[in-house]
This record gives sequence, structure tokens and C-alpha cells, in this order.
Amino acid sequence: MAVFEHRNTILFQHCDPAGLVFYPRYFEMVNEVVETFFARAVGWDFHRMHVVERLGVPMGRISAEFHAPSRLGDELDWTLTAARIGGASAELRIAGHSAGEARLSVAGTIVLVHLETMKAQRWPDGARAILENYVEEQA
Amino acid sequence: MAVFEHRNTILFQHCDPAGLVFYPRYFEMVNEVVETFFARAVGWDFHRMHVVERLGVPMGRISAEFHAPSRLGDELDWTLTAARIGGASAELRIAGHSAGEARLSVAGTIVLVHLETMKAQRWPDGARAILENYVEEQA
Amino acid sequence: MAVFEHRNTILFQHCDPAGLVFYPRYFEMVNEVVETFFARAVGWDFHRMHVVERLGVPMGRISAEFHAPSRLGDELDWTLTAARIGGASAELRIAGHSAGEARLSVAGTIVLVHLETMKAQRWPDGARAILENYVEEQA
Amino acid sequence: MAVFEHRNTILFQHCDPAGLVFYPRYFEMVNEVVETFFARAVGWDFHRMHVVERLGVPMGRISAEFHAPSRLGDELDWTLTAARIGGASAELRIAGHSAGEARLSVAGTIVLVHLETMKAQRWPDGARAILENYVEEQA
Repeated sequence: MAVFEHRNTILFQHCDPAGLVFYPRYFEMVNEVVETFFARAVGWDFHRMHVVERLGVPMGRISAEFHAPSRLGDELDWTLTAARIGGASAELRIAGHSAGEARLSVAGTIVLVHLETMKAQRWPDGARAILENYVEEQA
Repeated sequence: MAVFEHRNTILFQHCDPAGLVFYPRYFEMVNEVVETFFARAVGWDFHRMHVVERLGVPMGRISAEFHAPSRLGDELDWTLTAARIGGASAELRIAGHSAGEARLSVAGTIVLVHLETMKAQRWPDGARAILENYVEEQA
Repeated sequence: MAVFEHRNTILFQHCDPAGLVFYPRYFEMVNEVVETFFARAVGWDFHRMHVVERLGVPMGRISAEFHAPSRLGDELDWTLTAARIGGASAELRIAGHSAGEARLSVAGTIVLVHLETMKAQRWPDGARAILENYVEEQA
Repeated sequence: MAVFEHRNTILFQHCDPAGLVFYPRYFEMVNEVVETFFARAVGWDFHRMHVVERLGVPMGRISAEFHAPSRLGDELDWTLTAARIGGASAELRIAGHSAGEARLSVAGTIVLVHLETMKAQRWPDGARAILENYVEEQA
């Protein structure tokens, strides 16, 4: 089982008047993790997906648990795995840690859709084969 | 049981290259709904809460289901109720509709904390009494 | 000479760890002022302009002077006028005040372009006639 | 004369419904360039500056010229130099290119202030000495 990793720094622009990451900015980071995963691991960058092929992977649902606050200057280490790959969907598990401390855990279901019709599309075989590498082994 | 209502327009800045609301912007709107609810319904604006009293109401967890995409120019009608008010927390239910069509449903748990210590604080009696008005009746 | 007016509240999401408006958020507000101006004053909403007609009004250049900081909870009163309407462009003057105190002054030049080619397009006559109402009188 | 360099990728979250970078997102990138410059070149990270020392470097004024649009997936190469270092201020010059094409040029004046009083503070000697290395030579 593969685990995709990504890292970013908590910048001034992510923080609220309390000096903590404003949680909508976490979802921007989650989107960056997914986008970078598609570009680097799946080999399907969002320019090609969205602009050339007119496909997208919107979130159908997402949930997040915030374990501890993140602050200006923290380095966030992200991991992305999958709980399940469906015909046209993928249940992703994304977690952020800083210096080994869990900061947030996110579960989100993306669906491959055609942008003109918003109808679900089956994963292409090549993408599916790669996505399946990231499925967590079950106990 | 009271229901808090709020409305906003989907602006250019909320939309992604697919012409749909980029979901992290929905969470900014959710935060605006909560912030406006505290200012107008609870009578406790975020300037007083955060700057004067050094308290905050960060999200402990949040989940969202996206039922249908929203597009540039849509009017979003938001409702906020509560599923439960705890000693220092509140389980909020926030939904967005446009022209009667459900767009998203959000469940989020906020916790009242002191910003210096990040320790939970019990709701003040006045705020609690108002919050309880928004608790959904159970079947 | 007409002056377009708009108002917004400084929300939690606009503020930085110093408790002041983070200046890129001011530009989001400026965009909202321009977008609302086109919808309400010019009668040309951004959905029709961008999605239906495939036109846009990107900024060619913009400058801002920040006179005094804005804080959480401030009400910002915006005014929009024009310094000059060109064949395919408009030099806008946008200012934000709070409780009568000048907060920022912005000068920005928008250009009407076709989104496929990014080539400048002359203002339609109806839009131009309205835009010209907002040109500041010269001393 | 030194030139500070930084690079970022244009992500989905930076782009508008026209598929181009939404210009307020450019200012978030400019802020990231400045913040990274202070951390890496000046040795003064924003956590220490803002949280520990209660100082900040807000923009007093900023202007930007947008030469060509940037699109999803573009790599942006940023440079930062200074036109002048004042007692408590610095006139920065920040430019973004992609594949050698000029995308935007920004001139911004930051002022070192104490966050409690918002009063200007003279640059510490160590920071000033480094900032002066980035001043452009004059013809």
C-alpha cells in the first residue's frame, strides 16, 4: 500500500485573529494535497483534467476532525490514502501532522464528473490502477 | 424552536475554473453564517468575543454533504439550527438552498475556548439560553 | 455625476493574526464592489457576462493606498466612480471608509475582453452610456 | 546586489471561472514571497516577528501591473528586490514570470510597525543591513 505525502508551511495568510489556522484554509490545503496527488502520483494534472478533458473531481462529501490547532510557521506533513475506490468515486483519507502531533483528519469522497453535464464518469483504467495502490489494507 | 436565516450571493471570487463554487469557499460562507448568528441572534459579536474577551468558538469537527453545485450569481439561503448544546460546545446544523434546491448540509461542533489557553469554557448563561432556542425539536 | 455605493462588514475571515484586514482580502472586497456595480448599476451581471457571453473585465493594473487599518466588525462604506472610460477600458476609483475615516483608495483599470481570445472588445453602447455617468467631473 | 527568488505553482484554488488567476490571489502570493523573503533571507520569520515580538510589516501602498494572464498549472518564478530602504520602511519590487514571460510587476511599500500601537519602528540594524543588499543598483 502506497501513501502519498505532501508538506506545506502555515503562512500568515492561513491564520485568523486568534493566530490559529482558519479552518476554511485547511480545506484549501486539502485541495492542494489532492491536486498534487493527481499531478504527481496519478500523472493527471488538473490543467489537463479540467481544461483539456473537461473533467473534474468535486467533493461529494467531506468531514474533518480538528485535533489540535496549527499556528503561524508550523510545518504541516500531509498523508493521503484511500479507503475505497468506486466506479467513479474515491473515498480519500487525508491527515495533517506537525512535528508528529496530529492536527486534523479528513475523509472526503471525490467523484469524477464531466464538467458540462456534471454526470459521473468511470475512472479511466490507468488512473484506477494507480488509485488502487493507495487503498488502505484492511485488518 | 427558532431558525436563524442568512443569505448571500455567489460571487466571482467563490467560483473555480469549472464555474462552480470551490468548496473551501463554502466553509468561509459557513463561518459567515455562524459569525452573523452570534452577532445578531446571540448578541455576541466576534469583535467583543475575540478581541475584548479573548474567547473563540473554533470548530472541533465539521462535515458537509454537497447535494448540487452552486454557480456564479446564485442566491444562497442559509439556515442555522442546533442539534445539541453542551456545557462548552454546540452542535450546529447549517444548510444552504438556492431557489428551494438543497445545495449543502453541514454539521459542525463549535467549542467555546479561551484563546490564551485553548481550554474549553462553559457558555455564559445568557448565551446558553439563546442558543437553546435554536435546538431542533426531536420527533 | 453618479457615485455607486456598497457596504460590507469586516468578518473574521478577512483578518490576519494582527487582528487587521489582510490586504489581499481588500482586493476581494474591491472585486465584489466592481461585480455588484456591474450587476446593479450597469445591469450586466457577471453570470451573463462570463458564462453566457464569454466576456470578462480583468484588471490591467491596480494600485491601492492604505490610509488606516480596518478591524474585525468594522462596517466599510465603499464608493465607486470612474476617472475615464476608454474604448474597451475603464479607469475606476474605489474608496473605502469606515465611520467617516478613509481606510483605502484604489485606482484600477479594467479592460473588457473576450475570454477565448483575451482580446479587448469595445464596450457595448448601453454599458458605455451607463459607465459614463460615473465619470468624475473635472475641476 | 542580491535578488531573492521564490517559485510557486498556479493551483486550482487560484483560478477564477475564466480559468485565469483571480488577481486577489496574486496578492496572497506576493505576501508569501515577502514572508518567505523575511524568513529565509532576512532570518526573521513571521512567527517571531508577529507573535513573539509583536511587530508587523503591513503594506502602506501597493501597485501591480498585470502583463499577461496566468493559468492553472503554470509555474511562477518570483523575484524580490528593493528600490529603497527607509528608516522604518522598504520599497519592494516583486515580479512574477512564467517560462520567461512577464506576468506581473508589483511595487509595494512595507512599514515596520509595533502591532499594539501601529506606530512605525526603525529597522533593527541586522535586518537593515540585509535589506540593503537587495537594493537595486541605479543606472
